[in-house]
Amino acid sequence: MKIAVEITYLPLSAQGVTTSDGASGAVVEFAGVVRGEEDGRAIEALNYEAYEDMARSQMGKILHDLEKNFPCDSVRVVHRVGRVPVGEAAIVVRIEAKHRSEAFGLLSAFMDRLKMDVPIWKSVS
Amino acid sequence: MKIAVEITYLPLSAQGVTTSDGASGAVVEFAGVVRGEEDGRAIEALNYEAYEDMARSQMGKILHDLEKNFPCDSVRVVHRVGRVPVGEAAIVVRIEAKHRSEAFGLLSAFMDRLKMDVPIWKSVS
Repeated sequence: MKIAVEITYLPLSAQGVTTSDGASGAVVEFAGVVRGEEDGRAIEALNYEAYEDMARSQMGKILHDLEKNFPCDSVRVVHRVGRVPVGEAAIVVRIEAKHRSEAFGLLSAFMDRLKMDVPIWKSVS
Repeated sequence: MKIAVEITYLPLSAQGVTTSDGASGAVVEFAGVVRGEEDGRAIEALNYEAYEDMARSQMGKILHDLEKNFPCDSVRVVHRVGRVPVGEAAIVVRIEAKHRSEAFGLLSAFMDRLKMDVPIWKSVS
């Protein structure tokens, strides 16, 4: 499984899901987007902070771990840090897999582990 | 939940996942792409046929059903029919939801139901 992990201060972009190399039958892109409401009050942005080196290596380790249960062809994770305005993505995950069950399983398990085990924090900006 | 269902003979495009209206915190796009191998032999394309009216209404009904368990903000399904070359998408599903769990649940359950209950067939082209 090809694994790529990045942390960036720039707005995120997505590659699009409509084509693959013909080996992957399932392509999925997910974005976690900042909502206009946090704990019931309106906000304009969230601020994300990370221990960048540790966050990157931890995300890589989690993906490597999950590969045993959810073997996919490739996964790319880009997490934005700094100020992220409402309506913009804080994280984008793209997965290509032979079949959709592994892709959905990896995506869901990775997002759960990310929240628990990766040193990235958010606060109202 | 806004529901949109389409069947088309044209190549599919995706909208991109990196922004939402600020009400949705999870945006997911999935493509089911034609693989270069079917039952162990190399292929160049698959041919999809549908009872179009019935397929459209059945997809709408399934999504309406699933909304009870997985209430999302919007879902759009576009299924391509006719000849779909290897590496191109036969279906694209885009979902926006407040939280990712409903989005992932809807996507996975819809794809399972689609394969069982919607009159769309594929054959090697």
